[in-house]
Amino acid sequence: MRAAVLRDGRMVLRDDVPDPIPGLGQVLVAIRACGICGSDLHFAAHGRQMLDMTERVMRGSGGTAVDLTRDIFMGHEFSAEVLEAGPDTDTHPAGTMVTSIPVLLSATGVEPIVYSNHTVGGYAERMLLSAPLLLPIPNGLDLKHATLTEPMAVGLHAVNKSNIAAGETALVLGCGPIGVAIIAALRARGVENIVASGFSTKRRELATTVGAHQTLDAADGSPFDTVQPAVVFEAIGVPGIIDDVLLRARPGTRLVVAGVCMEADTFHPFFAIAKEINVQFCLAYTPEEFAESLRGLAEGETDVTALITGEVGLDGVGAAFDDLADPERHGKILVTP
Amino acid sequence: MRAAVLRDGRMVLRDDVPDPIPGLGQVLVAIRACGICGSDLHFAAHGRQMLDMTERVMRGSGGTAVDLTRDIFMGHEFSAEVLEAGPDTDTHPAGTMVTSIPVLLSATGVEPIVYSNHTVGGYAERMLLSAPLLLPIPNGLDLKHATLTEPMAVGLHAVNKSNIAAGETALVLGCGPIGVAIIAALRARGVENIVASGFSTKRRELATTVGAHQTLDAADGSPFDTVQPAVVFEAIGVPGIIDDVLLRARPGTRLVVAGVCMEADTFHPFFAIAKEINVQFCLAYTPEEFAESLRGLAEGETDVTALITGEVGLDGVGAAFDDLADPERHGKILVTP
Repeated sequence: MRAAVLRDGRMVLRDDVPDPIPGLGQVLVAIRACGICGSDLHFAAHGRQMLDMTERVMRGSGGTAVDLTRDIFMGHEFSAEVLEAGPDTDTHPAGTMVTSIPVLLSATGVEPIVYSNHTVGGYAERMLLSAPLLLPIPNGLDLKHATLTEPMAVGLHAVNKSNIAAGETALVLGCGPIGVAIIAALRARGVENIVASGFSTKRRELATTVGAHQTLDAADGSPFDTVQPAVVFEAIGVPGIIDDVLLRARPGTRLVVAGVCMEADTFHPFFAIAKEINVQFCLAYTPEEFAESLRGLAEGETDVTALITGEVGLDGVGAAFDDLADPERHGKILVTP
Repeated sequence: MRAAVLRDGRMVLRDDVPDPIPGLGQVLVAIRACGICGSDLHFAAHGRQMLDMTERVMRGSGGTAVDLTRDIFMGHEFSAEVLEAGPDTDTHPAGTMVTSIPVLLSATGVEPIVYSNHTVGGYAERMLLSAPLLLPIPNGLDLKHATLTEPMAVGLHAVNKSNIAAGETALVLGCGPIGVAIIAALRARGVENIVASGFSTKRRELATTVGAHQTLDAADGSPFDTVQPAVVFEAIGVPGIIDDVLLRARPGTRLVVAGVCMEADTFHPFFAIAKEINVQFCLAYTPEEFAESLRGLAEGETDVTALITGEVGLDGVGAAFDDLADPERHGKILVTP
């Protein structure tokens, strides 16, 4: 079958990938759409760094070895159609449209579907999923919109971690896919004053579309000159942002870090101490939040139409990775095999 | 009257300080004992840095200007005897033994009693306190022990901020006065597994005295090789500690930062993100926590006798500042005018 794989830092099309064979508890699915995630772009550019950091933090106890000199499968924001189940495996009937948290259960353990030399991800014609984790896509939800279940769950998780109340002002730093997902989750939670800051006009428009009450052009100065939030969501992920929040935020601020900064960063503990700031670092989501994210999309609570700005076949993944470098051109690009 | 003042980085004795005159709502007290705090040592050595950092974080909106070229009064852990009240001020009868949060209310505002060119602190014969803030020292509590109300309140505050449950393992990094205060507060809260780590044998003994169930010599390696705490209390306050905790702690760890690091520090956000660590930065205490700290001491919940390892007169403050540099020699030194 065909799949787009990462080879020497570039996404290339292969047409000789063996069809995966479902084992016990697994299901072969045909991928209908898969979103390109910023972390995939980052891995393509800085794979060595990401693997090294993961290895350090797991202290040898976790993670799957990935060989960067061999082809790597990626793609973890997918919707798919059930084809067939593995032996002794009950699942939904063939033809059912599903999504799933990107985790593959097998006889040898639990593997994230994220970067792998052997487990195929969503940038392919077909892949394996885990029968117990499949969620049917309800309510006739557009299969392209359903791919946003995963990134929107990341935003929902960050908002849940913040314990924000409806009357508290939220400031979202960064209007990329994670920032936008956070804004949508804040709106769904009933937060009454959502302010979003970013450099890109296009992305600030997306922020407004999904629920920001006010947007600020980051080029005009610090958002803290305009707003005094109770909760700050960091969705940028570059060095220096956290220290700037600690310096400028008001006492008692809760900072939720959802942007993934892979580099060393510098900060001043005293800024945070003097104001008793709480910093909650976040990653991913729970299975329950993933299901809630799907439900919210299916019920139309967030209009995600505007977030999807491009669509490519498997032969266009490499060019799409390049295009996504420009925030004015694109929100989310989907791969439709 | 006599007072020890900071002059050119050294504590020197003056005998020509004018007696303070209580204004409306103020009370003149005779200081009976005052503990020397690590922050006073730090201010003596790095006053310029502390003032600059405070100015930065307050962004011009707070703090009292302190002129380092003039004498500076310090001393904020005191017990004292009421002498006389200011005009139209009701207070406890003369002779009542009291303590107070170190804040002076006046017609011009609220001033911390911490570092000042004009407001006398506890390293003096007499000082002003605020009538509404006075707490009588109950239960015949030793006036020397009562000086520990303030540092023990810092520990209580950090523990309250952690929301630790009795069954959760606590790791306290650092067995200086703040670490010891945290340990005592953890014990008072009923925490069943309190592990303390430090380099000083003497201070680890103090940690055990106030309630640590286990102590670890930091020279023997990382405490995380021995214990997997749910909550980590950072009571060291030097660069590098926070990043090491983020690297070594288990997923979901709550890190409470009580040590005051005044310098820039480096950390890896990814370590914290991958494990969804929560970092709560802490400072000081609430008035209620201060009162609770006094009550705990007066009821004998913590035996603080061993914490007090020295006593000097006003003429010995300079030498005491020097002696406190050696953790093997001293816990807390009291100044008794």
